[in-house]
Amino acid sequence: MNYFSSDFKLGILGGGQLGKMLLTETRKFDIQTYVLDPSDDAPCKIGSNKFFLGDLNDFDTVYQFGKQVDVLTFEIEHVNVEALEKLEAEGVKVYPSPKTLKQIQNKGIQKDFYTDKDIPTAPYKRFESLTDLKLAVETEEIDMPFVWKSTQFGYDGNGVKVIRNAESFIGLPDVQCIAELMVPFKNELAVIVARSPSGEIKTYPVVEMEFHPEANQVEYVICPARIDDAVAEKARALALKVSEHFNHVGLLAVEMFQTEDDDILINEVAPRPHNSGHYSIEASYTSQFEQHLRAILNLPLGNTDSKAAGIMVNLVGAEGYSGNVVYENIEKILGQDGVTPHIYGKKQTRPFRKMGHVTIVNEDINIARKIAEDVKNSIRVISIQ
Amino acid sequence: MNYFSSDFKLGILGGGQLGKMLLTETRKFDIQTYVLDPSDDAPCKIGSNKFFLGDLNDFDTVYQFGKQVDVLTFEIEHVNVEALEKLEAEGVKVYPSPKTLKQIQNKGIQKDFYTDKDIPTAPYKRFESLTDLKLAVETEEIDMPFVWKSTQFGYDGNGVKVIRNAESFIGLPDVQCIAELMVPFKNELAVIVARSPSGEIKTYPVVEMEFHPEANQVEYVICPARIDDAVAEKARALALKVSEHFNHVGLLAVEMFQTEDDDILINEVAPRPHNSGHYSIEASYTSQFEQHLRAILNLPLGNTDSKAAGIMVNLVGAEGYSGNVVYENIEKILGQDGVTPHIYGKKQTRPFRKMGHVTIVNEDINIARKIAEDVKNSIRVISIQ
Repeated sequence: MNYFSSDFKLGILGGGQLGKMLLTETRKFDIQTYVLDPSDDAPCKIGSNKFFLGDLNDFDTVYQFGKQVDVLTFEIEHVNVEALEKLEAEGVKVYPSPKTLKQIQNKGIQKDFYTDKDIPTAPYKRFESLTDLKLAVETEEIDMPFVWKSTQFGYDGNGVKVIRNAESFIGLPDVQCIAELMVPFKNELAVIVARSPSGEIKTYPVVEMEFHPEANQVEYVICPARIDDAVAEKARALALKVSEHFNHVGLLAVEMFQTEDDDILINEVAPRPHNSGHYSIEASYTSQFEQHLRAILNLPLGNTDSKAAGIMVNLVGAEGYSGNVVYENIEKILGQDGVTPHIYGKKQTRPFRKMGHVTIVNEDINIARKIAEDVKNSIRVISIQ
Repeated sequence: MNYFSSDFKLGILGGGQLGKMLLTETRKFDIQTYVLDPSDDAPCKIGSNKFFLGDLNDFDTVYQFGKQVDVLTFEIEHVNVEALEKLEAEGVKVYPSPKTLKQIQNKGIQKDFYTDKDIPTAPYKRFESLTDLKLAVETEEIDMPFVWKSTQFGYDGNGVKVIRNAESFIGLPDVQCIAELMVPFKNELAVIVARSPSGEIKTYPVVEMEFHPEANQVEYVICPARIDDAVAEKARALALKVSEHFNHVGLLAVEMFQTEDDDILINEVAPRPHNSGHYSIEASYTSQFEQHLRAILNLPLGNTDSKAAGIMVNLVGAEGYSGNVVYENIEKILGQDGVTPHIYGKKQTRPFRKMGHVTIVNEDINIARKIAEDVKNSIRVISIQ
């Protein structure tokens, strides 16, 4: 197949920042792209060969879009799976497959999958509604505290809440959910696995994640994780096992917990480029976006090693600001060694909205960590009137 | 000045591969761009916010285009300088300045500039026409062999020829030119210097260039150059001296010769991102394209050090092939560690046309050099019917 400067067309469902960073790679390779997104302001409007405005959850819209392309991928999981299934049945290559997507879209099904495959994960129970869950608490079938997770449509900390007492339930939607045991852990880790249709598999190094306590969004992603080699090896092996069981094509971001006893538990996975892999654009021999492209096009996978240590800081909207975005002190952070801001191109900021990220690369991870803290303390995503 | 996700507009004259790689950086920072190019197929048509079709040498076209932007830069030197002068006089920031451009556009003026500033360069004589030059040869005012160079519009080896005897003159245009003494040299070197309006200056490491003997196009660019530290230091210092004398804003690519006696002579300069700096996209902490952007926007300059050794191989059209391009064996080279092809997006190949480049990065420069040779011997830019 001739992908480069040819008539070949790659379709991407979703035109947000993940799509935008994927377009950097399709432009580099001169691979034609069609993008579908519901927003006329989508970051992918520029950089795609053709941009289509439409609902990602509408069967006809997704189906008609998919019929025009040779390979179809997505940068967001909440898309119409039935349309993907029909497209796949009619010969469009859909990567990751609708089957993989269905296993992942619903966190309840995802958890059952791990149990079924003997993959360690925190103990949980599934409930058809919040009402059912409350009843289970009342009848002492389950004990507080626990973690409530909506089985669908959760992202960036939405759809996840620690339930400590009856008041914690206030404001939660009455939807299908799981209650997960709170496992005390030392670290949140992640490994990105790439797999191509021919079965070639490569894993990226283990990264360490620090979350913002309130927004429940990642604050720092540190590569490599500052953990024992043996623990890193265990995490990488488990991620590989998960990948093999999903039998996915493209990237699989595997989020894990390192318990107090150095056990590794699977938290959840995402079948696409992931926030925990953004560091790879500057730090890795092959960025996760190029790797996703290589994987879904069945090209040889690239080297996943790092050229330098990398730390990623998310740029989220500051509290108290909504409106036209300004990146305060961005000039200041550009004056530090190895600092690269990525601005997603959303014109409007609001509290905790993901507006961009900053990567810090350095030979010495401790220097990188210091600079990262300085970056985090300097730059603010605010608004002007 | 707020550049990021704002109403600020950067204008770029020229929409070729250099512009395309610059757009990767403007997209990363979400800086609005307007691009002017005479070709409707220009690589910058995708990735720019607004693309304008027009003649870069037409005063009115360039002037009207320039009036719409806040900062104006170029990716090709052959643009209408008078329009730039008028725009600058009317308050548009033009970087590099029309003054710098005039000093560089004409190789005769450029050589005189070096002589004037006491910057070592190969001895030369200027001639108003080929006729005058031939006369000088006949009257033995100058001796063969020497290097004929057209003073204007030469690029990628066009406009340069070694004159060994009277027959060498056949086919040369009757234009203003210089005759330059052939100085025996060990190496061709280059250093990229970045300078911002505030006067901040940074130099990239010295790279070593190998030319294709026939096409006179660069075949490998190797960073760092495999030369003595003392020679590298001398080359870097000379590049800095040249930069200071030009007093330019943006990048200045300084090409040099290392003579048999380890003297460094200036060959020529280009006031823009340059083929000799393409390795920096993968190998440097700051790519030359991001650096050019930082410089012309008066942002702090980034770290010019390398994360790994880098080697660049140009992808030029194979002899005997013209038409719709195919990159033969590109899958094969993608299977090697640290190999990144950049495909410029020109649909039609022809012999020696610059169609793309490949970067090879590795901790070990000798391994990178081996892989580079394998890449060069594997990939072919051919055409299909």
